[in-house]
Amino acid sequence: MNTRITKLFNIKYPIIQGGMIWISGHKLATAVSNAGGLGLIGAGSMYPDVLRAHIQKAKKNTTNPFGVNVPLLYPNVEEIMQIIVAEKVKIVFTSAGNPKTWTSFLKKNKIQVVHVVSSVKFALKAQEAGVDAIVAEGFESGGHNSREETTTFTLLPMVKEKIDIPIIAAGGIASGRGMLAALILGADGVQMGSRFVASVEASAHPNFKQAVIDTKDGDTFLTFKELAPVRLIRNTFFNDLQDFYQTNPSKEQLINFLGHARAKKGMFEGDLEQGELEIGQIAGLIHQVKPVQEIINEIIDDFRNGVQELKKI
Amino acid sequence: MNTRITKLFNIKYPIIQGGMIWISGHKLATAVSNAGGLGLIGAGSMYPDVLRAHIQKAKKNTTNPFGVNVPLLYPNVEEIMQIIVAEKVKIVFTSAGNPKTWTSFLKKNKIQVVHVVSSVKFALKAQEAGVDAIVAEGFESGGHNSREETTTFTLLPMVKEKIDIPIIAAGGIASGRGMLAALILGADGVQMGSRFVASVEASAHPNFKQAVIDTKDGDTFLTFKELAPVRLIRNTFFNDLQDFYQTNPSKEQLINFLGHARAKKGMFEGDLEQGELEIGQIAGLIHQVKPVQEIINEIIDDFRNGVQELKKI
Repeated sequence: MNTRITKLFNIKYPIIQGGMIWISGHKLATAVSNAGGLGLIGAGSMYPDVLRAHIQKAKKNTTNPFGVNVPLLYPNVEEIMQIIVAEKVKIVFTSAGNPKTWTSFLKKNKIQVVHVVSSVKFALKAQEAGVDAIVAEGFESGGHNSREETTTFTLLPMVKEKIDIPIIAAGGIASGRGMLAALILGADGVQMGSRFVASVEASAHPNFKQAVIDTKDGDTFLTFKELAPVRLIRNTFFNDLQDFYQTNPSKEQLINFLGHARAKKGMFEGDLEQGELEIGQIAGLIHQVKPVQEIINEIIDDFRNGVQELKKI
Repeated sequence: MNTRITKLFNIKYPIIQGGMIWISGHKLATAVSNAGGLGLIGAGSMYPDVLRAHIQKAKKNTTNPFGVNVPLLYPNVEEIMQIIVAEKVKIVFTSAGNPKTWTSFLKKNKIQVVHVVSSVKFALKAQEAGVDAIVAEGFESGGHNSREETTTFTLLPMVKEKIDIPIIAAGGIASGRGMLAALILGADGVQMGSRFVASVEASAHPNFKQAVIDTKDGDTFLTFKELAPVRLIRNTFFNDLQDFYQTNPSKEQLINFLGHARAKKGMFEGDLEQGELEIGQIAGLIHQVKPVQEIINEIIDDFRNGVQELKKI
């Protein structure tokens, strides 16, 4: 396969594994890179020293390209960026912040930069800031999300119309046919999160992996829209939160209600009742935990079958 | 082109024009049917006698198949169904209600029935009720919508996995590439609403057609979730409503705030400030009001170009 994204990163398949807190350490990232995609270490849940250790292990375990995802609102972002440069990481995905802040610093250090956006306006800003590509992420995606709620099906062609740099589609993609549809709508590659949560190599707790398998359409919701919107599975915590909303809480009360380390509790420690379980709507199409290599093989087979079917139209 | 939907309705292209209140009378419906798609008269904003007149005009103006869309919560639904049978309408799309209520009556009268759903659960219910096909409608679609907020990109493959009857994709589709992506994700045809609002033949007020052209990504929102969720353009009425929400209104207060005939005021009378302007997210991709024939030609050209590009992958 040959798209602007496979060329940009020098990878076999235009499949990027999204950087996810508590899920994507060196093990998942290198499994994806070794299978021909691009693995990303998710820095968002790592102390700087932990991130350094993950990068060093990744370098040992793959000779293929891999990257690091850095949420720009991360408190230690300065230290993180220094580690990324010192460890000679070649690819950085930035999200949740202004693309202007770090892009030129990273580019000066010969690092490829991709920024995650969820609107045409921010796609244009990221392009202006000099990034190499953007991730266009739709409303259906898991975890943190945008207030504008634009879906993958509509965001992709609208972004494509205005943007010249390569586009990576995210949100709602867990199959080869999903990848094919995204390419048709204007993408040059795809980023998948949920599909890789349900992989053997993900550092998610087995309870959470099972919860992803059990999730059906209509089981995830976007909430905390007053703080930073996040998509998660409806569980006891979610239902209690909806009751709490009936009391018309202030932002401070919502932050208190959320409490500390709830994402870790749910996704890493496996507390399905009280934890925050971040996953995308496409979880309803994921039915089995599998090794990464098998997931990638299935995606490519499904993609090729989709192409063959189209040739009959 | 040859899909289960073109065969089911005996039409040239698998393109259905959604039945829309105040927008789709006989003029729009027959223009679409004459151009090789399937036009639908939207009964939801018509008194029974008005609907009868529209059906009679449609029969005069096209020899191709056309249909009627009936929201099942419509107060005069019984009378509407009698008119449909008396006028020998061949195709009925039902929405906003239980598919069991009318399907067997319509089938006994040799009428093809399609039901609109937005979840796997209701797709299965519709199939059980004996409909000929379903419309699977995603969160990005304009007007009335579901509480589950499942998007077109994720709904289609999840429905496809469970359903045997033909699937018509709706929500977010306004181009040939959108149609192609929908077919890849599991659909046999597409229903487009927003694209046909911005057509010469739509009975929408010119102000509203221009508002659709001016709409960008992030300009539409789903609101009235406590009553029946509806996607509309953010205007003065929408902003006032959001302020009103801050007062924690009851359902009755919300119904009073909405008032009477606000959709007619916005879409048919052209009051862009105080009217309700129902449109889908894909309005951001629609840049010109055009005759239906030209719209269909463009969709087919774009579809074929998309297929050619895929053959190079």
